[in-house]
Amino acid sequence: MKDKQLTMQDIADLAGVGKSTVSRYFNGGYVKEETRRKLKEIIEKVDYTPNTIAQSLKATKTKTIGIVAPCLDSITSSRVMMALDEYVRNEGYVTIIINTNHNEMRELTSIEHVWKMNVDAIVLIATNITEAHRQLAHKIDVPMLFIGQVFSDGYSIVNDDYHAGFDMGEYVAKKGHMDITYVGVNASDRAVGIERKKGVMDGFQTHGVSSINTIETDFTFTHSQDVISAYLKKHIPSVFICATDTIALACYKEVQALQLKVPEDISIVGFGGYESSSVITPSLCTVRFDNEMAGKMAGEAIIKWINGEIIPKMQSVGYTIIEGESVQSI
Amino acid sequence: MKDKQLTMQDIADLAGVGKSTVSRYFNGGYVKEETRRKLKEIIEKVDYTPNTIAQSLKATKTKTIGIVAPCLDSITSSRVMMALDEYVRNEGYVTIIINTNHNEMRELTSIEHVWKMNVDAIVLIATNITEAHRQLAHKIDVPMLFIGQVFSDGYSIVNDDYHAGFDMGEYVAKKGHMDITYVGVNASDRAVGIERKKGVMDGFQTHGVSSINTIETDFTFTHSQDVISAYLKKHIPSVFICATDTIALACYKEVQALQLKVPEDISIVGFGGYESSSVITPSLCTVRFDNEMAGKMAGEAIIKWINGEIIPKMQSVGYTIIEGESVQSI
Repeated sequence: MKDKQLTMQDIADLAGVGKSTVSRYFNGGYVKEETRRKLKEIIEKVDYTPNTIAQSLKATKTKTIGIVAPCLDSITSSRVMMALDEYVRNEGYVTIIINTNHNEMRELTSIEHVWKMNVDAIVLIATNITEAHRQLAHKIDVPMLFIGQVFSDGYSIVNDDYHAGFDMGEYVAKKGHMDITYVGVNASDRAVGIERKKGVMDGFQTHGVSSINTIETDFTFTHSQDVISAYLKKHIPSVFICATDTIALACYKEVQALQLKVPEDISIVGFGGYESSSVITPSLCTVRFDNEMAGKMAGEAIIKWINGEIIPKMQSVGYTIIEGESVQSI
Repeated sequence: MKDKQLTMQDIADLAGVGKSTVSRYFNGGYVKEETRRKLKEIIEKVDYTPNTIAQSLKATKTKTIGIVAPCLDSITSSRVMMALDEYVRNEGYVTIIINTNHNEMRELTSIEHVWKMNVDAIVLIATNITEAHRQLAHKIDVPMLFIGQVFSDGYSIVNDDYHAGFDMGEYVAKKGHMDITYVGVNASDRAVGIERKKGVMDGFQTHGVSSINTIETDFTFTHSQDVISAYLKKHIPSVFICATDTIALACYKEVQALQLKVPEDISIVGFGGYESSSVITPSLCTVRFDNEMAGKMAGEAIIKWINGEIIPKMQSVGYTIIEGESVQSI
């Protein structure tokens, strides 16, 4: 029965399951244990390899990869998408991007939309993975890679948010700061809202700082201004640890509005490493994630996956602390 | 012969021309005078209206609009695309974006690519319109709108670059500056490279300043740093007029590296009105184009066009001068 004519549908028919289940089996997606055993048995019997599957699928390739992004005005996602685009272009693929404007329903329908456009693979720049995402990911029968958040049932490229947070916490603690305010974002964004924050907390704790004030904002400049401005009326900390550079820039603005000086009166740090953070005076102390590397890694992974090669379940991207001039030694 | 079964192809056959010519005829694109006469005659004879055409085409609508963009990391294009996306989403359309990374060949192939994906319309965020663009636009049989550059054979949404430049030139001239350096970009970008620059020159000239040094860079921060750093070794002007905020931010960086102060030693102005330009100290004097309005106008125009309604050939978007703190009175 070994035959290059054999299709994924044939395997599906033999196992009495849907084609998408067979695809998931080969792509490492979720398959019920019982079905997995049955598929394994059949595949061994017919002496089948994922490469044969990949080969038999080739005919329908559109050479198009769909990217679903939460927005177009984040420097981080833009850098990732441009590097990803560049990588896959050189491999003969075109990427098409759909913007969801941070709307979960749109995100889910956009994933379905690109899928129905017969893309060869889907990349989701993820901010929040819900049960609906999981269900959809199991239905999608093309490779689907998550960037920015760990997708436990599939494949992800993520920033090493915990360690970046830890190193930053440690760095600021070593400068002698004790009165710390962390300006974070909602926990629905696991990577930034939980991992990054936990890293910062643990970094401080290792150096004996266990009490940290925390306030919450969102990813926008203007809302962050409001939140920080209100907070500064009640308390002026020795340092603001901001979950993103955009939030840190809003801090600069509000601190300067009170005629206070950075870093003499208040130190400020961010996460992001945008160009604007280096041009401001004093330049911002921040963490630069290697977004270009994330894009390239994503491109490499997705092409390997399309070609039926094995890829790591999770890859994390490095970072660098840029000291800048916005943290005072106490 | 009046019949809702009549298709654009029928009209084309009657006239002995291609279907795309008939589409262009209705969409206001270029059609040879002789052909135009012939089509007009036939259409009158069969009592045909563009709405009937629009109606007969409806069946094949994908409710998808393709956007071809030069990059993803320009704040201006991102703002335009997000506003456009928001507008058309509310009308039941999805936009898909292809990034060309400022590569003309990719731009042309990307336009063809989205066209072949059966989008209902195409929007090009244009930087440079060449003869190849013209030829392609004539081939494309769906509405194709240009944003950012005037497309003389078709439809465009543009910034009022000339008057924005003029007002800025006038503003700086009134502050008493005489030793002016304009940091511009290549003329292949008509809107920024020619219109905006000419506006600035004319604005100064109206106030008796006729000699202005000009240097050229590109749209990137790092190359602009190099160009400005080299220039400052030879000459320190009283004011830098920068064609974009990114170039202005590079100016800040290089001026500060020389221990010079903005605006006491050198004044700096830009065009863009990014959030980062307001957070820097001193805040940047710049022109803010209403990018959200541009996106909304583009969305409105393209939907009307898809529905067979008449739209203006060219619409231009307003601007505001944000005075900031980076220009010294002399």
